Amino acid sequence: MSSNVNGNKRVAIIGAGPSGMAQLRAFESAERRGIEIPELVCFEKQADWGGQWNYSWRTGLDEHGEPVHSSMYRNLWSNGPKEGLEFADYSFDEHFGRPISSYPPREVLWDYIAGRLEQSDVRKYVRFTTVVRLVTFDEATQLFTVTSEHLPTGETTTEEFDNVVVASGHFSFPFVPTVDGIESFTGFVTHAHDFRGAEALAGKDVLVVGSSYSAEDIGSQAYKMGASSVTAAYRTAPMGYEWPERFEERQGLERLEGNTAFFGDGTTKEVDALIFCTGYVHKYPFLPQQFALSGPNTLYPERLYRGVVWHDNPGLFYVGAQDQWFTFNMFDAQAWYVRDLILGTAAMPTAAERERSMTEWQTRYANTAAAAADQIRFQGDYVRDLIRATDYPEFDIDEVTEIFISWYMDKKTNIMGYRDYCYRSVMTGTIATKHHTPWIEELDDSLERYLSPGPSSREPATASRP
Amino acid sequence: MSSNVNGNKRVAIIGAGPSGMAQLRAFESAERRGIEIPELVCFEKQADWGGQWNYSWRTGLDEHGEPVHSSMYRNLWSNGPKEGLEFADYSFDEHFGRPISSYPPREVLWDYIAGRLEQSDVRKYVRFTTVVRLVTFDEATQLFTVTSEHLPTGETTTEEFDNVVVASGHFSFPFVPTVDGIESFTGFVTHAHDFRGAEALAGKDVLVVGSSYSAEDIGSQAYKMGASSVTAAYRTAPMGYEWPERFEERQGLERLEGNTAFFGDGTTKEVDALIFCTGYVHKYPFLPQQFALSGPNTLYPERLYRGVVWHDNPGLFYVGAQDQWFTFNMFDAQAWYVRDLILGTAAMPTAAERERSMTEWQTRYANTAAAAADQIRFQGDYVRDLIRATDYPEFDIDEVTEIFISWYMDKKTNIMGYRDYCYRSVMTGTIATKHHTPWIEELDDSLERYLSPGPSSREPATASRP
Repeated sequence: MSSNVNGNKRVAIIGAGPSGMAQLRAFESAERRGIEIPELVCFEKQADWGGQWNYSWRTGLDEHGEPVHSSMYRNLWSNGPKEGLEFADYSFDEHFGRPISSYPPREVLWDYIAGRLEQSDVRKYVRFTTVVRLVTFDEATQLFTVTSEHLPTGETTTEEFDNVVVASGHFSFPFVPTVDGIESFTGFVTHAHDFRGAEALAGKDVLVVGSSYSAEDIGSQAYKMGASSVTAAYRTAPMGYEWPERFEERQGLERLEGNTAFFGDGTTKEVDALIFCTGYVHKYPFLPQQFALSGPNTLYPERLYRGVVWHDNPGLFYVGAQDQWFTFNMFDAQAWYVRDLILGTAAMPTAAERERSMTEWQTRYANTAAAAADQIRFQGDYVRDLIRATDYPEFDIDEVTEIFISWYMDKKTNIMGYRDYCYRSVMTGTIATKHHTPWIEELDDSLERYLSPGPSSREPATASRP
Repeated sequence: MSSNVNGNKRVAIIGAGPSGMAQLRAFESAERRGIEIPELVCFEKQADWGGQWNYSWRTGLDEHGEPVHSSMYRNLWSNGPKEGLEFADYSFDEHFGRPISSYPPREVLWDYIAGRLEQSDVRKYVRFTTVVRLVTFDEATQLFTVTSEHLPTGETTTEEFDNVVVASGHFSFPFVPTVDGIESFTGFVTHAHDFRGAEALAGKDVLVVGSSYSAEDIGSQAYKMGASSVTAAYRTAPMGYEWPERFEERQGLERLEGNTAFFGDGTTKEVDALIFCTGYVHKYPFLPQQFALSGPNTLYPERLYRGVVWHDNPGLFYVGAQDQWFTFNMFDAQAWYVRDLILGTAAMPTAAERERSMTEWQTRYANTAAAAADQIRFQGDYVRDLIRATDYPEFDIDEVTEIFISWYMDKKTNIMGYRDYCYRSVMTGTIATKHHTPWIEELDDSLERYLSPGPSSREPATASRP
């Protein structure tokens, strides 16, 4: 395909979080190699980029009445080692100029992903505080029509695109089941999505409903901030960590009566706060059903060729739509491949070939054991397959897989201390430094605090006077 | 216009709250008189009708990931006398079969508005759990295209309508300002929209930000449920009620430092909870800018002829879009008039005539004193003007106006007790009965409790044994 053809194309990228930013970076990387790229329009609902990592104190609806995107909270630190998510083309060493610890707080990770793009001029492609209202497709012209709204002014824009990349994420729309009796529960009720910090849970009996990352981490936050007790209610299997005192798991929240929770084992507990850690749903309010991914959070969603091509209309792509062990570097691998398909430097396989490939991967996925190590290896292979199809820098995926497996074991042995452990970067070989303060004692998650020399710097100035 | 023409028309009603229900009732009332009515499709996001009055314990996003519509909470009672909102064609006496008190709790009012429609078959027109995604207009065909999504299945539908009636309300999208330092406030933060009950505020120092109905009522709820203190921060003028001890007003929330609130008068207060009672915005995510009402909450919004016709495209209507003293019966008056315009039994005035009328009303509104009594009279005259243009039953609007003015004074003299007062219906002449339990002592807002004989029924059964 001639570069002239690409120059006349228009590509809509929906979302400027880690996935949308990877897509911008992918195109920029091609442009730096002298390839003409399409006109890019990246629609971002928020006022800045970073998606999930762009923290907001707001809950529910934002200042423009749109659903708040970020599900993060004060004191959120990465729950996986940064060595598992490092970009192959922009290392932590390059960004921070020195080694840092393996589990940075959110602001530090936001700084890292934003830092990569700030060296380029891709910000000009992003229309901030602009929400996509509807995407339609015209069979005759084979073009997508995107209707968007600039939130501060209310201005509505309708325009056509050759391609649409959906990069709006799938950890922003909470799944909140109902519980018998919840209408009369008078304690604090929220979902992990709207949880912003555990300080106010000090002295409270806290119930977290769920047994995945949110339950693990929000339960731990409540413990860290002094909850009287933390009870985690699982449906099928407990998390099974070696919880400290005041922290326990019980099977099945069956109902509430007043502020008493009834569990599957016949026990009850009076609770002051109930936090649903029940996960998220695929939700794309701007997509008609024919384009909207739905179904469970899985490592290989249905109808997505190579995890990115919307099989029924291969002009539409998704980035970051699967369940994730790998994150930032997987989004890169996907974005590079999507870019090549759009540029035509990679050929779009025929429908039959896509079907064959999807069946092959789905079959393999179905035959993958449920054990974490097997699931991680599956996703590692998926990422490797994409990288090999592109010019994204190769890196030691087996080693990253081993890091994830180790991390998984670290949590088993020390759920309240695993974030104090250090890993070696597969990109640079650098070994992470120990953070100046153990996670359990650190109450300030700011970048400034993180990069400071640590507690000794807090000694009174007089101490160093002559 | 021949009835045949109306029979071929299609009308979309967006929302099945009090305004949308009034629109359904208006058409049904015409049909009962033998008039052929258009095909009606009422889109309702929730699983039941009642809008605001359809309470949900959920906050933020609902079970389908849509913004929760209702802003109501446990223990919400009407904050105005029911004699001010009674339907002229369906009295409280007719619904309940006996006199009730003047300030019923939410479930009682929901039962009343639903009861009127349950006698008809208009429910068949409502597509529940169906959200409108986008409304567009084709100048060539003069038809509206409405794209909607059935939430449980994700099915997208696109269809054409001759008219669209926007009845989605304007008390569902919160206006939440920011406050310096709020990022590090560790107490409970919410907006009135997401407030669901004050029980958990017992023993807490509560800050409500605002000086209108929400601040007044949520502050009072916190007081009723045993807050240690309630501080209401006003911007320009205090509410000025005779607050009980433990309840005070202070000027201007200037900033937060940790959990300390700083006020405009230089004072500070440690607070445990901050509730924004800062109002709502006009928000119609499904309307392009050319159709979307915006601006402040006013008794006579700009660009709406007679408060209902979207001047720039008179095929589009709004019901219930103004600030409200009058409510249910005003929505009726509007819905009846909109119906007549759609049926053609009332003529749509020319653009010039609409301009003239809007200017006249806007001028009059601008010259109306800010005092509550004058504002109420303005709206009374507005309602009367609409009713006279339709066959909605006339009622004594001056008397209703007097009821509102009295209510306003009752609050001045007894903010914690005004809901125990009784009014006389202008529709039936019936005098309200005193509720069996004073508002300040009543902790159960259910319909069952309300209609029960009262506390004496709670005596142990043994008391009546022989």
